[in-house]
Amino acid sequence: GQAVCQQVNLKAAKSEWVMLNVGGKLFTTTRSTLTRFDPGSMLARMFSTDSDIEWSSSVDESGAYLIDRSPLYFEPIINYLRHGKLILDKNVNPEGILEEAKFFGLTSLIETLEDMIERDQLPDDNTPIT
Amino acid sequence: GQAVCQQVNLKAAKSEWVMLNVGGKLFTTTRSTLTRFDPGSMLARMFSTDSDIEWSSSVDESGAYLIDRSPLYFEPIINYLRHGKLILDKNVNPEGILEEAKFFGLTSLIETLEDMIERDQLPDDNTPIT
Amino acid sequence: GQAVCQQVNLKAAKSEWVMLNVGGKLFTTTRSTLTRFDPGSMLARMFSTDSDIEWSSSVDESGAYLIDRSPLYFEPIINYLRHGKLILDKNVNPEGILEEAKFFGLTSLIETLEDMIERDQLPDDNTPIT
Amino acid sequence: GQAVCQQVNLKAAKSEWVMLNVGGKLFTTTRSTLTRFDPGSMLARMFSTDSDIEWSSSVDESGAYLIDRSPLYFEPIINYLRHGKLILDKNVNPEGILEEAKFFGLTSLIETLEDMIERDQLPDDNTPIT
Amino acid sequence: GQAVCQQVNLKAAKSEWVMLNVGGKLFTTTRSTLTRFDPGSMLARMFSTDSDIEWSSSVDESGAYLIDRSPLYFEPIINYLRHGKLILDKNVNPEGILEEAKFFGLTSLIETLEDMIERDQLPDDNTPIT
Repeated sequence: GQAVCQQVNLKAAKSEWVMLNVGGKLFTTTRSTLTRFDPGSMLARMFSTDSDIEWSSSVDESGAYLIDRSPLYFEPIINYLRHGKLILDKNVNPEGILEEAKFFGLTSLIETLEDMIERDQLPDDNTPIT
Repeated sequence: GQAVCQQVNLKAAKSEWVMLNVGGKLFTTTRSTLTRFDPGSMLARMFSTDSDIEWSSSVDESGAYLIDRSPLYFEPIINYLRHGKLILDKNVNPEGILEEAKFFGLTSLIETLEDMIERDQLPDDNTPIT
Repeated sequence: GQAVCQQVNLKAAKSEWVMLNVGGKLFTTTRSTLTRFDPGSMLARMFSTDSDIEWSSSVDESGAYLIDRSPLYFEPIINYLRHGKLILDKNVNPEGILEEAKFFGLTSLIETLEDMIERDQLPDDNTPIT
Repeated sequence: GQAVCQQVNLKAAKSEWVMLNVGGKLFTTTRSTLTRFDPGSMLARMFSTDSDIEWSSSVDESGAYLIDRSPLYFEPIINYLRHGKLILDKNVNPEGILEEAKFFGLTSLIETLEDMIERDQLPDDNTPIT
Repeated sequence: GQAVCQQVNLKAAKSEWVMLNVGGKLFTTTRSTLTRFDPGSMLARMFSTDSDIEWSSSVDESGAYLIDRSPLYFEPIINYLRHGKLILDKNVNPEGILEEAKFFGLTSLIETLEDMIERDQLPDDNTPIT
């Protein structure tokens, strides 16, 4: 039961490369990626270097920022932040990604995902129910 | 064959961040997540800070609490505890998650999963057998 | 090319928690799980504390017992040993699990899997060929 | 928040074996693989030993070159570089691989992927819409 | 950019347990498995203890032999070497495994895989095109 966390002041840690520990899985990315879209989103505000607010966050022993969310559904989220396209494999449930988009406040993604989920619930011939 | 475990008194370990070693896979989460729903569930009782009972648990060498269950089916369980929605990918068998929900005593999930499994066993046109 | 193994006498290692290195992947479990069903199975005989036979086994540097089998198909096997139900995800081939059940001598599982494989080979309408 | 990176001059590091940390996942490969096709691609230019340009790149603590891209969709890319065939599993979305091919400047792959995506969007009978 | 490799003389390393680092993923297996089928295959010749040829190979820092191939498609290959059956999950593309079988010179597998791929390309009713 040794504590895995250490409080870190995010403004002091200026390195471009960032490690995130999302629910136990490590993601390596950059500040540019995390702050690219939706300036009001949680990740953009946490990792922006010109933020006014002093954020502090817990890190694990490897220095990765701890985020208590699903690594499975964070994967398409971080990928979206890299190039601006939401890409889903066939076996991934968009409702899982929607929960993450809501948590991180990625408003640009939320609408896309809600449309996608609505379309999925139509009959297979894709004709809207009238 | 060196012992991987060490007995730890759960009440003494007060840190908000918690690591779980579920069947060999590490999950990082918080006490708030583990105690959010179903106060009578095993996880809620183990990680509640105001519990009367003295729980002790084995930890691995990284300090993660050992749980002898399937990491595959624990994933949607811990995700449910994070936001209250049960989300399944298409290739995941709900019967696997049901076994975990039963083991952890998550009564709110058990019924949802039993309904889901029953619906899956209906013919493809989704018309209930009469 | 440094040796990964060390010979360990299994009777001397009495700890309840056990780590298995199956084909390169770590599984954490307990002796109770490994010895629960099929007392004649390889795992039950290896990890039973009241066994007459002196087993010795190779362990990796983390102390995990080395097993030269598929981690992919061992996953549903160890899950079965935890609660007695065989649960398969849609994309998992039951023939892979059958090979593991045979290797470990899990007679209770072999028949279940052989029935499952036979049913899978029927035409899609599930009507037996007459 | 400890920095994970160290700047490394790529021309000085001559070893044939190369580790890449793509979005948090390690890939082990060789310079021959990375420089085999598309000499103008980013990877070929970074890892070519007779390049005129002085590239520098960040590495993680294990010495792996950091690349801020999706490990999921890099997998078929690196596999393509090994033997020249683009191979996709059924559940992998070719649009994810296309984004990586574009990022790395693998012109030979981009056209193949664009054709594949176009074909996927035709109706199931594969008859082009007229 | 620190070198991950060290040259190792394979004949000198006699241990039965062998670790392979295939494209970044660790596989643990035995010499018996690697040399069981196709004595002329690359793996059989590399790991045979009575080979005349002096093989040398690079190893990573954990002592695993480096192989610049796809871990995804090596998985069914190593599983085949364990028990002699080729087993594929539904979402795995047999063309990926064929490339590995060709690389390692596993002649017994190549024909099986070529037949499998040919059958997959037939229409769904499995009636050969006439």
